[in-house]
Amino acid sequence: MIKVGIIGYGNLGKGVEKAVNAAADMELVGVFTRRSPEKTKTVSGAKVYSVNDLEKFAGKADVMVLCGGSATDLPEQTAKYAALFNVVDSFDTHANIPEHLAAVDAAAKKGGHVGAISVGWDPGLFSLARMIFGAVLPEGKDYTFWGRGVSQGHSDAIRRVKGVKDARQYTVPVQKAVDAVRSGAMPELSTREKHTRECYVVLEEGADAAAVEREIKEMPNYFADYETTVHFISEEELKEKHAGLPHGGFVLRSGKTGENSHLLEFSLKLDSNPEFTGSVLTAYARAAARLAAEGKSGAMTVFDIAPKYLSEKDSAFLSAHLL
Amino acid sequence: MIKVGIIGYGNLGKGVEKAVNAAADMELVGVFTRRSPEKTKTVSGAKVYSVNDLEKFAGKADVMVLCGGSATDLPEQTAKYAALFNVVDSFDTHANIPEHLAAVDAAAKKGGHVGAISVGWDPGLFSLARMIFGAVLPEGKDYTFWGRGVSQGHSDAIRRVKGVKDARQYTVPVQKAVDAVRSGAMPELSTREKHTRECYVVLEEGADAAAVEREIKEMPNYFADYETTVHFISEEELKEKHAGLPHGGFVLRSGKTGENSHLLEFSLKLDSNPEFTGSVLTAYARAAARLAAEGKSGAMTVFDIAPKYLSEKDSAFLSAHLL
Repeated sequence: MIKVGIIGYGNLGKGVEKAVNAAADMELVGVFTRRSPEKTKTVSGAKVYSVNDLEKFAGKADVMVLCGGSATDLPEQTAKYAALFNVVDSFDTHANIPEHLAAVDAAAKKGGHVGAISVGWDPGLFSLARMIFGAVLPEGKDYTFWGRGVSQGHSDAIRRVKGVKDARQYTVPVQKAVDAVRSGAMPELSTREKHTRECYVVLEEGADAAAVEREIKEMPNYFADYETTVHFISEEELKEKHAGLPHGGFVLRSGKTGENSHLLEFSLKLDSNPEFTGSVLTAYARAAARLAAEGKSGAMTVFDIAPKYLSEKDSAFLSAHLL
Repeated sequence: MIKVGIIGYGNLGKGVEKAVNAAADMELVGVFTRRSPEKTKTVSGAKVYSVNDLEKFAGKADVMVLCGGSATDLPEQTAKYAALFNVVDSFDTHANIPEHLAAVDAAAKKGGHVGAISVGWDPGLFSLARMIFGAVLPEGKDYTFWGRGVSQGHSDAIRRVKGVKDARQYTVPVQKAVDAVRSGAMPELSTREKHTRECYVVLEEGADAAAVEREIKEMPNYFADYETTVHFISEEELKEKHAGLPHGGFVLRSGKTGENSHLLEFSLKLDSNPEFTGSVLTAYARAAARLAAEGKSGAMTVFDIAPKYLSEKDSAFLSAHLL
């Protein structure tokens, strides 16, 4: 049995908890939180400890899954805990990946551990698709579309607008753009041409709807560059119709071998982004523990890990049944 | 530069030739044929040698790509040449893969070489999708659909019918079945419910069309279990409209994490099956050469090879730009 710990217990941590409990070859050591362990109840009844007690678990867990955020948690935590454990994270600030990779690599090598970083679906499975598609069809062009799905970052940005009580933002791929890519036309597409943004907003009492809408639509980086629609709804409607965290998207590669055109596509349609991401992290936690058991160490990405390490099944089963 | 040889020069060999010539990090050592080298002209002007001269190339090629058929060529050739070279093949007789893997493994280990077997898109990229999808979404069901595309085996079977001058058979996925899978209904589908077979047949002069149609439709294994349509066309029409070798298909996994449903899909739409398969083999030839250079040996499948080995780009580039 692979002994797994979870560091951080938000939606993602709960997704990992569910996936680890469902895996026949894994057992949950516990959940580690910065909040008060006494006040944290886990969904499955898993034990809760303070992150301050993590050092005591060195040698008692085969891998720790880090479920914090990429803005402040992971840049600090992953390298720190890679010194003590094999770790997996979902670090997704694309621009800072090389720096994060180097920091985790140094710590993991020093501690003799494996640190699998930037695991999930993007970065993660979508990265794998982009990389493999490019390698098997070198003459071509990549396209990544996200959605239809809830962007937590954009929802948070709307919530910070004065007069907004709650909000949910959906990133929506533009069907015309997807169709153009699928046709093999290899269009040049700006971010604006690829996605629109749909906002569902609950106003505070007495708030100025027109002013809120204007402020959202003009928000730089988040909305100003997109076709954005704002729908004002009641708190009840938000809870009833927008409680889930669905997401998904497509990676397409359109290309040629000489005169012949080819289209490769990978798509995801997820009812729960954090549960699916947690399930992917759990498969990579298995890989990290196994690679470490083989004597490997250092930081790794999805590109460095042979697919067989992800599966509960052994190699003989895989080649007989899935090849 | 990775020095690549091609053994066998049909459509697949020509596809590999094109892909190797397009790769900046590879050079073609030559094409090896069982036919008369003097009478074989290569598309790119690559040198042609007899397979009897292969032993003289030991140490002069980093990897040989085997482009023969799975029925008789590869079961004999792959293990034989794995003793002399790193090799890659596209062995696709699913039922015999474990046996083939064991034979190539023994020969490759003895020779200190890497033998990457069953590479292409199915087995190959579709296998990767099935395996990874199952690992990241353990509770679920797999579906593989093939087509719309030309099945060479089925076309050949029709050509063996008395009265048939030429033929082309398309395997066509049943849209209703694909839609049912995409809906998340996880239907149980027989092979018959998943695919239909479209036959385009040119008759010999004076042949009995009704008898030919009956013989095709009743042919066991190939057609009897499917909804089969037979279209009689002229030789000119066959050449004009059915000269290509398009193919493709879908791998879908429909599954759940607890209450939440997810759908994962990988699809290919290929104008030229042999050229794309040749391009995939070439990427795995790069991987085989690199893994051998790191001291690895033995038979490997797509499950055993970390994705980074497929790419012309180095790891720093991949994590900075494609992750």
